[in-house]
Amino acid sequence: MTIQAGIGQQAAAAFGTLYAEVQQFYAHQMQLLDLGESQRWAETFTEDATFDVPTLPEPVRGRPGLVAATSRTAAQLAEAGQRHRHFIGMFDVSERPDGTVDVRSYAIVYASVIGGDSQVHRVCVCEDVLVRVEGALQVATRRVTRDDLA
Amino acid sequence: MTIQAGIGQQAAAAFGTLYAEVQQFYAHQMQLLDLGESQRWAETFTEDATFDVPTLPEPVRGRPGLVAATSRTAAQLAEAGQRHRHFIGMFDVSERPDGTVDVRSYAIVYASVIGGDSQVHRVCVCEDVLVRVEGALQVATRRVTRDDLA
Amino acid sequence: MTIQAGIGQQAAAAFGTLYAEVQQFYAHQMQLLDLGESQRWAETFTEDATFDVPTLPEPVRGRPGLVAATSRTAAQLAEAGQRHRHFIGMFDVSERPDGTVDVRSYAIVYASVIGGDSQVHRVCVCEDVLVRVEGALQVATRRVTRDDLA
Repeated sequence: MTIQAGIGQQAAAAFGTLYAEVQQFYAHQMQLLDLGESQRWAETFTEDATFDVPTLPEPVRGRPGLVAATSRTAAQLAEAGQRHRHFIGMFDVSERPDGTVDVRSYAIVYASVIGGDSQVHRVCVCEDVLVRVEGALQVATRRVTRDDLA
Repeated sequence: MTIQAGIGQQAAAAFGTLYAEVQQFYAHQMQLLDLGESQRWAETFTEDATFDVPTLPEPVRGRPGLVAATSRTAAQLAEAGQRHRHFIGMFDVSERPDGTVDVRSYAIVYASVIGGDSQVHRVCVCEDVLVRVEGALQVATRRVTRDDLA
Repeated sequence: MTIQAGIGQQAAAAFGTLYAEVQQFYAHQMQLLDLGESQRWAETFTEDATFDVPTLPEPVRGRPGLVAATSRTAAQLAEAGQRHRHFIGMFDVSERPDGTVDVRSYAIVYASVIGGDSQVHRVCVCEDVLVRVEGALQVATRRVTRDDLA
């Protein structure tokens, strides 16, 4: 490990700390979404976050819109007797000098019919900008693309 | 990184260390399961661990029961010419003051027919309590739910 | 955390740093592959790396062969109107005394038809030997097996 000695080793350790924090952030955030905890989920975004996903006709801005969109989806799934799980990973993380964090990741959405089968529903790429608000990470902008769309 | 200075930074670094340890623990544990290494897999649980999964008629307690259950599954898969892989991730990790670690994660089980196709078999949520035994993590209790079951 | 005090705690912290580095390495490498960035992808391997995967008739050695193989695959996918994503995880990581890193992981390949469905394409086990070149990790040898093949 001599190559990484001194400042290189400190930077590597700091990156490791950040990387774990990012993973924990996403795991918790996506679990909140899948639990239907729309309000708590929305609070992992900044107050004025932009959220651009293919399932919405246009980008949403701000938490009330986030809550509305995910509450609607949760209600539709419950009515259809289905469960969705968002499995996110493959985090490509880079930190800017000002502490803003760019994360490009893959998210697989699995759909299960209660009493039926489970299958892959969507394969997505998620590009986020994370910022710190009172020390904690929040999503400032999210842009999701789906592999099955042109 | 000024926000995280001092004690906050130390706590973040300690969490990063724990988070990596948890990930390594699960990767190794699930690989042992998929390799059919039932005995070594069972040793990643405490002596008196409880294991509550939908595939078993009732919760198992203790390593001999764990070995029996997974050996049976391994034999059935071999006979059917199939392979299963347990892909676990999405770790939501929190450590209690006494060092016990709560982990809620997602586990996707993939099934492949040798000479055939691969597909999603099960989508599961895994809730574990991990404890330290001689410094190493072990599962004290595991409760798994399946998305396709009510 | 008293059990991990002293040298144990330092080793755990060093492992955490390495584990994050390994995860970041694979996330970035696989994203380059899926983006069709064959040249930059090949540069994440050593100059004389060996690459042994079931899709190739025989193992490839060296970057020009890697670029050729992946460029061919990228062209075929584009022509077929499909996208592949390599979702790798489940890293079982161990470092040798000389700094070489052994990594056994699972890689799921998802295939999406543009304008159609997404599904699991392949379930693979990836066994790599990583080395450091000027401080950065590179793959020296990769051996991939597919669950659907005998």
